[in-house]
Amino acid sequence: MSQATLSSLVNHQIRLAARPVGLPTDANWSHTSEAVAEPAEGGVVLQTLALSLDPAMRGWMNEGKSYIPPVAIGEVMRAGGVGRVIASKNDKYAVGDYVSASFGVQEYLSLEAADMRRNGLTKIDLRVGTLTQWLNVLGMPGMTGYFGLMDVGQPQAGETLVVSGAAGAVGQTVGQMAKIRGCRVVGIAGGQAKCDWVVKELGFDACIDYKAGPSAVREGLKAHCPQGVDIYFDNVGGDILDAVLARINRKARIVICGAISQYNATTAIAGPKNYLSLLVNRARMEGIVVFDYADRYHLAVAEMAGYLKDGRMKSKEDVVHGLENFPNALLKLFNGENFGKLVLEVANA
Amino acid sequence: MSQATLSSLVNHQIRLAARPVGLPTDANWSHTSEAVAEPAEGGVVLQTLALSLDPAMRGWMNEGKSYIPPVAIGEVMRAGGVGRVIASKNDKYAVGDYVSASFGVQEYLSLEAADMRRNGLTKIDLRVGTLTQWLNVLGMPGMTGYFGLMDVGQPQAGETLVVSGAAGAVGQTVGQMAKIRGCRVVGIAGGQAKCDWVVKELGFDACIDYKAGPSAVREGLKAHCPQGVDIYFDNVGGDILDAVLARINRKARIVICGAISQYNATTAIAGPKNYLSLLVNRARMEGIVVFDYADRYHLAVAEMAGYLKDGRMKSKEDVVHGLENFPNALLKLFNGENFGKLVLEVANA
Repeated sequence: MSQATLSSLVNHQIRLAARPVGLPTDANWSHTSEAVAEPAEGGVVLQTLALSLDPAMRGWMNEGKSYIPPVAIGEVMRAGGVGRVIASKNDKYAVGDYVSASFGVQEYLSLEAADMRRNGLTKIDLRVGTLTQWLNVLGMPGMTGYFGLMDVGQPQAGETLVVSGAAGAVGQTVGQMAKIRGCRVVGIAGGQAKCDWVVKELGFDACIDYKAGPSAVREGLKAHCPQGVDIYFDNVGGDILDAVLARINRKARIVICGAISQYNATTAIAGPKNYLSLLVNRARMEGIVVFDYADRYHLAVAEMAGYLKDGRMKSKEDVVHGLENFPNALLKLFNGENFGKLVLEVANA
Repeated sequence: MSQATLSSLVNHQIRLAARPVGLPTDANWSHTSEAVAEPAEGGVVLQTLALSLDPAMRGWMNEGKSYIPPVAIGEVMRAGGVGRVIASKNDKYAVGDYVSASFGVQEYLSLEAADMRRNGLTKIDLRVGTLTQWLNVLGMPGMTGYFGLMDVGQPQAGETLVVSGAAGAVGQTVGQMAKIRGCRVVGIAGGQAKCDWVVKELGFDACIDYKAGPSAVREGLKAHCPQGVDIYFDNVGGDILDAVLARINRKARIVICGAISQYNATTAIAGPKNYLSLLVNRARMEGIVVFDYADRYHLAVAEMAGYLKDGRMKSKEDVVHGLENFPNALLKLFNGENFGKLVLEVANA
């Protein structure tokens, strides 16, 4: 794209205007636009094609120490994404190349050479997976599920694994990988449609609809985990974590990946009151942050791309269209409306 | 001891009369007495010299599944102890031998050969440690501290370890072993006297008096753990666990050994509301039950007996006298009145 054409583009952006209390509202966002500058020497300009919407975003909006710094007030909201190189002054990237990076919630991203590593700029191959699969099983959620399961969960054939958020991006990867490793896999998801999908399409052994009633999880675990629970991959926290803690086996591993039930809490979050089950059962609860495994992403991508090709793994994305719909789309995660990995399509590929 | 003399003995016992709600009261105990029978073929009769009073006893009084079955209503209260063989029809045990075993809260124990293993009958050597040390650093609490620290805590020289219940039986072992392994050691205990003792006598680097004020633990951790916390050995649960969770380092290990602050709770226990610090810090919380390490007790005893001899380890026991004082003595654990490992002396050695 020529400099003349670049300068005619407008980069629409969504910025964090204020830190939310509870669920984010329109008041937490500001909409801005900027011109798109030509790339610096060694730099590239990228067009956003699709953004990954993830529960972790809610945490990035809070002040205070976490595994990465919070998004600053006035800053473009942080978001991983996939896109296309539209201008380049860097030999490694040609116009037309597809890439993944931390794009932010905006239509274009100009990256200097010095910022490429920090932004996770990586070429992606659309023969290996679709654009949206590169945000799902081949992207951050897939990497989170893969390494959380393999390195922390340490699945053994014949063990029983339970995963919450089973139809979500991380959950679908965890459950399918655990099946491939020979585990009995029981999902927990909201609604019969999601439960049917993970059982019938993904091959989980069972799935518990946590919305089916106040004792649905407790009864479901009893019915579907007759040998107890060896691995619990937790994306939700709260009452479901407590219900699983009550059924873990000796030497069980609980992978703490997230706690979506607690992210919008306006009071102190609920700690797992059954945590002494860890003592009784000599069990372990351990946190996972995907970035720690960056030097092994390529191995997980290679393995899971193979399963996508041979049909042993499937993926499902829930695609919302239009940058301006970001604020409402994000809320789908917190009311459980999304069915599959939530993706915001920003431009046509 | 001759059969005639044996039959003249009266075995006073304390039995569980009812399951407590909250702190145990006199209504939870019944006092009984029985004759002492001569030993069966292959059996022994033991005289109780001292019993170990431990926080775990409160858990054994509750109904429901745990790491060992509850004490049944009407049963002699379970208690580990040390004593002496007073009659024997077993070649391995001679009258006068000192032993440790699960004595129960009673003056005599008659054991058949078939029950010796289940009762943990083991000869002890008073040249290696005193009777009360065999209930402390060389007994269950010492084994709990040693293996919880070594196998779950995995201390590395230069790391910072925090241990609650620092002046208690498990805490004193954990802190001293961590010092020997080259850690910075910060205790948490109730009252200045206990804090002074673990610092001045046991060589801890610092000790926080949790009774010194509502922010004492938070401020103390900040002051005494400038590099954060790598290992937390938790004997207490509750607010202190939460305060430490807020200061753990990456890849920290939290050893869940007990939760004495919660054992008498009459409502749901308080779960650690800061548990998501495990996620942010890729940290681990893991339970430990000492019985899993039974086949390695002799190694820990040998190592720590060496440290007792060469002065690198010290021990302190808080001795209450008289079987009939068991109910009140037990309560000292829950109001923090005991100073050192709580022991009930039942007869003179």
